[in-house]
Amino acid sequence: MTAAPGTTVMSVAEAEAFAMRILRANGLAEHQAGPIARAMAAAEASDCRSHGLYRLIGYVGSLRSGRVSAAAQPRLERVAGSFLRVDGDNGFAPAAHAAGVAALIDAAQHNGIAALALTNCYHYSALWHDLDPIVDAGLACWAFTVGQCIVAPHGGNRRLMGTNPIAFGWPRAGQRPFVFDFATSAVARGEIELMGRAGKALPPGWAIDAAGEPTLDAAQALAGALLPFGGHKGAALSMMVELIAGPLIGEPTSRAAAALDNGDGGPPLGGELLIAMSPEVFTSGLASDWHQQAEAFFAQAREQPGVRLPSDRRHDARRRSEESGVGVPDMLLQELAGLSLCT
Amino acid sequence: MTAAPGTTVMSVAEAEAFAMRILRANGLAEHQAGPIARAMAAAEASDCRSHGLYRLIGYVGSLRSGRVSAAAQPRLERVAGSFLRVDGDNGFAPAAHAAGVAALIDAAQHNGIAALALTNCYHYSALWHDLDPIVDAGLACWAFTVGQCIVAPHGGNRRLMGTNPIAFGWPRAGQRPFVFDFATSAVARGEIELMGRAGKALPPGWAIDAAGEPTLDAAQALAGALLPFGGHKGAALSMMVELIAGPLIGEPTSRAAAALDNGDGGPPLGGELLIAMSPEVFTSGLASDWHQQAEAFFAQAREQPGVRLPSDRRHDARRRSEESGVGVPDMLLQELAGLSLCT
Repeated sequence: MTAAPGTTVMSVAEAEAFAMRILRANGLAEHQAGPIARAMAAAEASDCRSHGLYRLIGYVGSLRSGRVSAAAQPRLERVAGSFLRVDGDNGFAPAAHAAGVAALIDAAQHNGIAALALTNCYHYSALWHDLDPIVDAGLACWAFTVGQCIVAPHGGNRRLMGTNPIAFGWPRAGQRPFVFDFATSAVARGEIELMGRAGKALPPGWAIDAAGEPTLDAAQALAGALLPFGGHKGAALSMMVELIAGPLIGEPTSRAAAALDNGDGGPPLGGELLIAMSPEVFTSGLASDWHQQAEAFFAQAREQPGVRLPSDRRHDARRRSEESGVGVPDMLLQELAGLSLCT
Repeated sequence: MTAAPGTTVMSVAEAEAFAMRILRANGLAEHQAGPIARAMAAAEASDCRSHGLYRLIGYVGSLRSGRVSAAAQPRLERVAGSFLRVDGDNGFAPAAHAAGVAALIDAAQHNGIAALALTNCYHYSALWHDLDPIVDAGLACWAFTVGQCIVAPHGGNRRLMGTNPIAFGWPRAGQRPFVFDFATSAVARGEIELMGRAGKALPPGWAIDAAGEPTLDAAQALAGALLPFGGHKGAALSMMVELIAGPLIGEPTSRAAAALDNGDGGPPLGGELLIAMSPEVFTSGLASDWHQQAEAFFAQAREQPGVRLPSDRRHDARRRSEESGVGVPDMLLQELAGLSLCT
């Protein structure tokens, strides 16, 4: 890959090592830092920059303020036959995920469906990355998390919900899985932040200002509220995520988490709900072939010109990045390099 | 209730008995007809007319053509610890639901999460009604079904997916539950049919014609395709429903089901996936109070003027109907009364 002006090209492994170095330099334990660095490098490789290296700023902020425990030891508990819980010990979510995902897969393969709650932790990474090992095990799956409290309800004039993403994965033998992951807000908070950093105006319909009036300004939007995607339907889904990734698993709603925030720029308190389902169990004893049926559906989708599957763009970027590396803006790299210095 | 001109007022019980009479007159077994009549009366009472009495036309059509079995005997099977399946025996979905919902509730209360697949049946009723007994048992729950194949993918020019509704329910002690149920198309097919019957134009953005061009005409839309709600995000959700309420449970995709249709105006072949989760199990051993947390969230939503919860309108209608009955258009009643005559 030829570096664009003002960018530096890194291999995906180099991006991971760079993230690891900065997290470790800020005292984060290796078992906490490793899953974060891998998730961040995967996001850069997949051209999901809003979950890429720039999030180091927030991770480090929450470590330096002492809000997140740098040596947290996640603990897995099998609460019921199909329900597992990881207590994140006040650390970051990726280590909690790493502690529980194998047990989730095992429970779903035995019981047909199972759920895993990541609790007492801080969530700041891309959900689709959390689904990768589950779809790789041949399971359909969801992940939900309550994002930062910045979304107004349908018809409302101020923040109530988080950006509350929904991710879904479907396994495809011999092919990259069908995976989507989107905020139930009109746009992800990270996108607004990046547009603000780039001085770009927002499209209409994304946000309201602190007075509840429509705005195209990223800073005004971040001071006001984002709108849900898709009108009342998207707003209902946002409320659903707030309930199932909050109270259902004993985690705070986004507004309750916001009240605990200390302004260090890091992730809010709040975990994640993962659900896995086994197509093999669900179709056992039937004559139907779930894999062939799904592949016929995907093939029919591709017959229509202009139709792409949700994960196409990300998978394409991943292939390019694995061959040619990722281009990271020099300004960001300089800012991030400063994070590894003692304060 | 005073009858509006051209309408007849019935009590909710009378609407149910009316539906029962017509279904029974067309040879449908009592255990099949009862759950349908109850669902239909509940839809009328909740002002969800697109799932109300007018659907008798389709139910009867599919009985008269012999496509659906009038004496079907659903059979429940516990396939795995948390996965249950009802074989609908080529009957209608409501009887299959009635055969499996108690086992679903029991499995979720024991294992934390459980799923129930309704298979080998014909689905034509409102999903929210299927959630009522599950939320009444104190469980959070989902229902998904693959609707009639009439929705184009994002960026596409012809039908690929069904209207693929998603319903979600959340239990509230001492209050009507939080429930939503919406098509992942811009609008439900039934709404388009009713607008066509009333001679109304569609709003822009709902549909394309058979050539893939935007249309405001209900008949053109029904000959062409509906668009998903919420752009690429709604389209991704529609694909998700197609996968999990189709291949995942051994049921056809909407396009495969459409290929089996005989034009009798009744429901397509295709079942339903229900998932139930226990907040009591999910929060067991934790200090948090899931119910109090959720109620605080709902109270915060209601503080904002103009914000209503998704089920408010339906619950309000239900209260009114239980007191004053439902008004049914005389033209529809006459058409339906004809269905109880021998052909």
